[in-house]
Parts: sequence; C-alpha cells; structure tokens
Amino acid sequence: MTETNFRVLLARRPQGAPVPEDFRLVEEAVPTPGPGQVLIRARFLSLDPYMRGRMSDAKSYAKPVALGDVMEGATVGEVVASNDTGFAPGDLVMGGQGWQRFCVMDAARLRKVDTSLVPLSTYLGLLGMPGLTAWVGLEDIGQPKAGETVVVSAASGAVGQVVGQLAKARGCKVVGIAGGAAKCGFVTGTLGFDACLDHRQPLGPQLDATIPEGVDVYWENVGGAVQEAVFPRFRDFGRMVMCGMIAQYNQAPGADASGAPPGPNLGPVVRKRLRIQGFIVSDTGWPRYGDFLATMTPLIRDGRMKWREDVVNGLETAPSAFIGLLKGENFGKLVVRIA
Amino acid sequence: MTETNFRVLLARRPQGAPVPEDFRLVEEAVPTPGPGQVLIRARFLSLDPYMRGRMSDAKSYAKPVALGDVMEGATVGEVVASNDTGFAPGDLVMGGQGWQRFCVMDAARLRKVDTSLVPLSTYLGLLGMPGLTAWVGLEDIGQPKAGETVVVSAASGAVGQVVGQLAKARGCKVVGIAGGAAKCGFVTGTLGFDACLDHRQPLGPQLDATIPEGVDVYWENVGGAVQEAVFPRFRDFGRMVMCGMIAQYNQAPGADASGAPPGPNLGPVVRKRLRIQGFIVSDTGWPRYGDFLATMTPLIRDGRMKWREDVVNGLETAPSAFIGLLKGENFGKLVVRIA
Repeated sequence: MTETNFRVLLARRPQGAPVPEDFRLVEEAVPTPGPGQVLIRARFLSLDPYMRGRMSDAKSYAKPVALGDVMEGATVGEVVASNDTGFAPGDLVMGGQGWQRFCVMDAARLRKVDTSLVPLSTYLGLLGMPGLTAWVGLEDIGQPKAGETVVVSAASGAVGQVVGQLAKARGCKVVGIAGGAAKCGFVTGTLGFDACLDHRQPLGPQLDATIPEGVDVYWENVGGAVQEAVFPRFRDFGRMVMCGMIAQYNQAPGADASGAPPGPNLGPVVRKRLRIQGFIVSDTGWPRYGDFLATMTPLIRDGRMKWREDVVNGLETAPSAFIGLLKGENFGKLVVRIA
Repeated sequence: MTETNFRVLLARRPQGAPVPEDFRLVEEAVPTPGPGQVLIRARFLSLDPYMRGRMSDAKSYAKPVALGDVMEGATVGEVVASNDTGFAPGDLVMGGQGWQRFCVMDAARLRKVDTSLVPLSTYLGLLGMPGLTAWVGLEDIGQPKAGETVVVSAASGAVGQVVGQLAKARGCKVVGIAGGAAKCGFVTGTLGFDACLDHRQPLGPQLDATIPEGVDVYWENVGGAVQEAVFPRFRDFGRMVMCGMIAQYNQAPGADASGAPPGPNLGPVVRKRLRIQGFIVSDTGWPRYGDFLATMTPLIRDGRMKWREDVVNGLETAPSAFIGLLKGENFGKLVVRIA
C-alpha cells in the first residue's frame, strides 16, 4: 500500500472564531526531496495561538497562509529520506513544517534532537518555540531580578509554564494567572509558582491580596480583562513583556483597525517609568538556541523544570483542538500526535 | 530699604485646570544661608508641565508640594551670599529652586554656568532640564538612526524643539506636531524640521501624506488625540518615548484612576515589536550633564541648534503663565523674568 500525505489546508479565512469549515482535510502524494533536502515523517504537530494570525490576511509580521495552502505549524519527526549528508533515515529532527504527515525541508532548517533528556514532543514545547519564547522574552525584556515580583498570564500554557519556572530559578516571587481551579492547582502544585489566580473570579482583589507590593514584570499572553487588572498595579520601572494577546485574536481584524478595543491609559508609563515591549521569537531567538538549551538542560536534569502537554491524537483532530486552544480549553502545551 | 522675598505658594489643590486662586502671593523675609549653603537671587524661573503633578496629591514619582509651601520650580540666578568656598557673590548658577525671588541652596546642588555661549535663561531650557530631557530620552529610548522617521509632539515646546533638532543632527527625517500655523512655521522655518503638522486639523490624513512610511520614533509629550493618531502608524520596531501626556494633566486625578481615558489597544506592540518606555530625567540625567553639554555645545556654536523662549515678566505673572502653559498658549520655552 502506498503511503499518502494527509494534510490540513486553509479553506477560507475565519470570521471571528475559526470553525471546522475553515479547514479542509486532503490526502495527497508524498512529496519527493530535492537536492539538499530531507523528507520527514511528522510524529507531532504543535498547535499555537500565533496560527490564528496566519489564517487572516490582515497585515502582520508574517505572511498569511494562502487559501488552499497547508496550515503553517512546527512539527517534530523522523527522517525518511535524505539528500543531505548531515541527515540519515531514522534521525529525529525538529524544524518540520505544516499540518501534514510528510514534509520536505531544506536540511539547513532542521536540527537533530536528543531524546535521552526529554521525549520527542517536548521539542515543540518546553525545548521548542514556546520555551525559547519564554527565555528570549525574559532575557531581553523582562530581565527579572531576584526578589522581584513576576506575574504570568496563561500560566499553565506552553509559554507561561516556562516563564514562571525560569523566573523562579532567578529567585523571583512568581504569580500565575490561569482559568479554573485545576489549572491553578497545577501551576502552584506542579510548576511551583508561589500563587496562581483564577481569572474567572475578579482579578483586582486577588492581585491586591497576593501581591500588595505590585508587579515588577508582567508577562502578557492574554490582553483584555487580565491586562486591565494587572496594568494599574505595576511598580516603578516595571516591564510588560508583550508576547501575545490571545483574548482578542478572534476579535480584532488587526489591532490597529478601528474595531480593536481600547487599551490602558499610558499615563503611568511616564510616571512609573514603565517599559512595554513586544517581541517575536523568530526575530532573534533561533541563533541563540544553544544558550537557551544551556539554561534549560541543568534545570531539567535537576528536576527543577516541569511541563505538561495536552496531547490529542490524529491530524484530523487538529482543527477542533486549535479552535479549543483559542478558547483556553487546552491544559498545557497542545500537540497533535500524528498516526 | 530692606529687600523681601516675593514668593508664590500653593494655596489649594486644583480641581481640573488650575485657576489663579490656587496660588497665593506673599512677601517674606529673605532667608539666611547656613553652613555650606548659598543665597541666590533668582533671575529667571522655569515653568514646566510637570508642575501640575506637584500641585496634586495623587501618588506620583515625586512628593507633592504641601499646601502653603512655595511652588516647586527651577531657577537660574546670581549668588548673593555664600558660605561655601566654591561660590562667591556674583556667580551665575543653575540649581535654584522655587517660585520665589530668593532661595537658599546647598552648594552641592548648584552648578556655575557659562553665559559666553548662551544667555542665562537658556539654562532653564535648551541647556537645562528640558534640553537634558530631550537628550536622555533620545539616548536611552528613542535611539533614532540616520534615515529613520521621528515624530515629535509639542514640537515648538521646551523639550520638543531640542528633540527634533537632535534627531535632525543624527540624520533623521523629523516631523513635528504643534498647534497652529505660527508654531508650525517656526518648527520648520527656524528649527529646520522637515515638516510640522497642525493638530488643530485632523492628524491622520496629514500623517499619511507626510510620512507614508510610518513612524520609527514617536516622542510623546501630549497624549490624547495626538497619541491616538500617531500610534497606529508605527513601523516595525518603533519606539515611543513617553516623556509626558500634557493633554490629560488637568483631567485624570492619577492615570490609573478609573477616570483616566483609555489608551491604544496594545496588540500592535506584539505584532510590530514596539517599545513604549517612560522616563523621568531626574532619575539618571544630571550625572550625565557633561556628556549632554558635549553634544550640545558644538551644535550651538555651529548655529545648528536654535531655540525660542517665551518670556513673561514678573513673578506675579507666573500663575497665569502656568495656567496658559497647560493650554498650549506659550510659544517656546516658558520662563519668568524676575524683577
């Protein structure tokens, strides 16, 4: 029996929250690697909030996925065929692309991974783009110092988990924000944050009770009501690491469109000398992957770095899992195991 | 005839825009310098927007002026009596304080000034706190590179004048925003900005026509509608130097109070990797005054740095001049000549 390439394509651009009809599942021929290329069979696909942006044709930092093209996404998998001397069948690699079973990649874009330290799927989360995002944002923008108070939104998510644990390793007081008792229990019990606040309850009083001293670093994954609650509670010289604002990804056609909800009054930025800074990990992150690993490896070996994945099975479930991700239905880093 | 110390006190805290009744003018005895202190007769008093904050008891980066105390403000003047070997009668100094004819200062807080390069009053503007503010904000936050586009609000004001000319000296395209044709004509004609937009006309279309490429650095002195027009027009990696938001100083009791008007949606901060950063010149500026002078002196000598002062006469006019400053009625750096 000939193998086929199962693929998930972008069928149309979502209006508001994506629905299953925005995707199309197809089976196509397995592609053939050209010179210097490698054919990879994906084992896991990463699902991440940024993909919502790629489904839209609003101007952004990256090109949108074209209608009828395969959905963009990182995969980890196994080399099946290689036209590059650096890779051989059986090698496990990160750097694959697309919501699809097989992909062909230029060898230069691939990286072999070590599964003696962590399982393969971890290279999509803790040791993948989300983990690297956490590290870059703290290194470059948050720069938390021992004794400072760090607040992390979406604390049980792929990025938030790592942000909080890295900040704990630097000696900070770390407070997560997550949705519901189960996630909050995981954030404090397993990840070891000092506290976790449930955003389904009014956040202002919880913040005042938990961090009367105020916020030195706020890691922004969410926006909306969470941002509104945290913003007035910055201390002088606070830093707001702008990683994402998932609460409005289904809302604003583009954040400068007139439809975008207003944000905080910026007066305190002057008065408190705040820094608000956005970043995209792909700008500067990957060339520093070695430094990132050097930070993470001992923490993992010592058992000081925990993580949780939310694994769904089968590429055909990717659309519904992704739709749930935008509603906060996942619990931990969301990955798709590919049959 | 014995001289007296004419002083302007804070009589009550303003509700909204200050009114003359918020101030009280008194004549008191001339103070006597203690050990290590210097008695100064002020020649000029600086009036600056930050003083509105000192009139309020809302929490801020500096203590408010107490009711019945002399209004806070920088002065330049002449040493009348000195108990410090570093200063002698007749010396011209910056570092005096208060809306008053005479003040006593610790010698360590004073700096002799050179009036061969610029007139004495200039040490309250171009070579004083406002000029230093412009330089620090560009050095530390704006960091404009040759060829970049810099937009400066309140462009004809004490800080804006210097910001734009320093950015021009760095090879930037510089666009000012000011109120009315006279100020705009000064900004382009005398200061040499590439363009100046009148905020009394809708700014969005003017910005689109003048800087279709977008904004790399926005110097924020104003807030409100000006901020609203500029914010969506940032280019990737833009920097917003948060120096002040004068449009709301009479409005918001404190910018995190619920009465503060909303600000821009922060979505573009992620997408465009923007940096929004506030600063207060007194945090880090004065120890670097020598570096600042080293930048400014050749520009002044070469005639590449212009400035305009708006001089009012007599301390008794300070309250009304200050009230006008908050409405944008001054034209250039506002100083009071003290009889």
